[in-house]
Amino acid sequence: MIYNDPSHIARCAQLAMILEVSATPKPGNIDRDHNYTDTRFEHFLASAVGVYPIMEKAARSDSGVGSLIREAVAESGKWQKGGNTHFGAFLLLIPLVMAAGRCENKTCLKAQAQQVVRETTMEDAIEFYGAFSDAKVKVKPVGDLDLGNDTSIDKIKAKGLTLYNLMEISCGYDMIAEEWADGFKRTFECAASIRNKLKKYGINDAVVLTFMGLLASNQDTFIQTKFDCKKAAEVSLRAKEIMQKGNIDEIRDEIHSFDEELLNEGVNPGSTADIIITGLFVSLFQGMRF
Amino acid sequence: MIYNDPSHIARCAQLAMILEVSATPKPGNIDRDHNYTDTRFEHFLASAVGVYPIMEKAARSDSGVGSLIREAVAESGKWQKGGNTHFGAFLLLIPLVMAAGRCENKTCLKAQAQQVVRETTMEDAIEFYGAFSDAKVKVKPVGDLDLGNDTSIDKIKAKGLTLYNLMEISCGYDMIAEEWADGFKRTFECAASIRNKLKKYGINDAVVLTFMGLLASNQDTFIQTKFDCKKAAEVSLRAKEIMQKGNIDEIRDEIHSFDEELLNEGVNPGSTADIIITGLFVSLFQGMRF
Repeated sequence: MIYNDPSHIARCAQLAMILEVSATPKPGNIDRDHNYTDTRFEHFLASAVGVYPIMEKAARSDSGVGSLIREAVAESGKWQKGGNTHFGAFLLLIPLVMAAGRCENKTCLKAQAQQVVRETTMEDAIEFYGAFSDAKVKVKPVGDLDLGNDTSIDKIKAKGLTLYNLMEISCGYDMIAEEWADGFKRTFECAASIRNKLKKYGINDAVVLTFMGLLASNQDTFIQTKFDCKKAAEVSLRAKEIMQKGNIDEIRDEIHSFDEELLNEGVNPGSTADIIITGLFVSLFQGMRF
Repeated sequence: MIYNDPSHIARCAQLAMILEVSATPKPGNIDRDHNYTDTRFEHFLASAVGVYPIMEKAARSDSGVGSLIREAVAESGKWQKGGNTHFGAFLLLIPLVMAAGRCENKTCLKAQAQQVVRETTMEDAIEFYGAFSDAKVKVKPVGDLDLGNDTSIDKIKAKGLTLYNLMEISCGYDMIAEEWADGFKRTFECAASIRNKLKKYGINDAVVLTFMGLLASNQDTFIQTKFDCKKAAEVSLRAKEIMQKGNIDEIRDEIHSFDEELLNEGVNPGSTADIIITGLFVSLFQGMRF
């Protein structure tokens, strides 16, 4: 296998997004058995398939993180009518895919990814803001920069902020930004967890258990932004309690009930799902098959 | 949209395979809620994603149907460990994808597909036999040619048979071969049915209803080969009776029961599923979004 073949990398990104959204039960999030009112399982499948050429381009690119994220959002929107599906995922996948394109073996990915994000420019920050407003994502402003607002772009220019700087500013309250600032720590932990659980379980359960483990040990910042810290802490505590009760077959029913509760309340751990996608991407890139 | 862009065509093929295997309940076949012992839903997802470069190559190719089918089987096998997933689908998709690559607008696909299959050569027939034995598919021999046997290749050479000739020989007892011989009639009927049902239903139900309709009006030849004509006729009659009972919401429970029965008996309408894939491919290629 040629690891840094751009087509291999792009297909790993597609399959990572498809396996993540398929994995069930995944409390609070869309999966093969659960849809939201306007956004459905199939919208995620179509988005993951549609974005191939942007991922292939990213694997060949040395720069342009911001515009690649913006192109991925646009391409995703051409393939489905369910609105924003993968904004957070693209924000993590694009630098990882670019890093994969630079790797001559499967072990250098982490170091390359750290380099890609540190090399981002002010232009990337501006393009990222554009992508944000294209995707119509609701999020907390970055520091005193109100995202999706023209004044923010003036502030970025005035301060000369790069996309990496924006992520450093947000990393205290955003898991995605923390991945950028923290060298993709959780992404690589998830990759190791998925590979490890695959020795004993099928791919679905390996993903579900890794999702539950990540949720148990990290408060989801998407929930934190949509609700508050208290809600995010409650959800993580609940995940932790369930995980302590036994193996997947012993806790499956309880995960299902937890899922139904979160769905009814509209509580979706979206950032946790994004990091599961990148964990899957890393595993697949490094040769995981099932 | 540039219809004959090879990447657009390859993604339509990927998404067609992914939407088909996801659609549920689809009596007797693998879907998002049903696996077989060794072959699972996720194996189909990985196969559909993995085969991208062969589909893109096919969209750029003027000839080589047989070797492209063989390459697709090989690539599918590199991405999953579930064995044969899409052999029948590749046999139909490869000529349709090649035809799509020749189309300058969305309406010429049928005529081009008919031309592609008629232009196949003896070399294509020999490569197809190779693909067959690579995929380890169990099927009825073509006429007096025992598939996957070296003597068959000698007979093909002695008689100068093309792949189209082989399909003409098999078309009486194989729906896939009949599509080749009959100008992809059912494929285009399915495409029209999916588009039509999408006006009223979501993509999942549009696919399920089209699958049930195709099964009701055509005895599945995969069942016929695995069991006998009587079994295939029984399954189609049962599908027809269910379809006459009402709309999707009124018959959903009954489709579920039918599904469980067929799965328990190991009766899978595999050829019907293959034609649903090509129906989806045609619809997506012609611009269907949801």
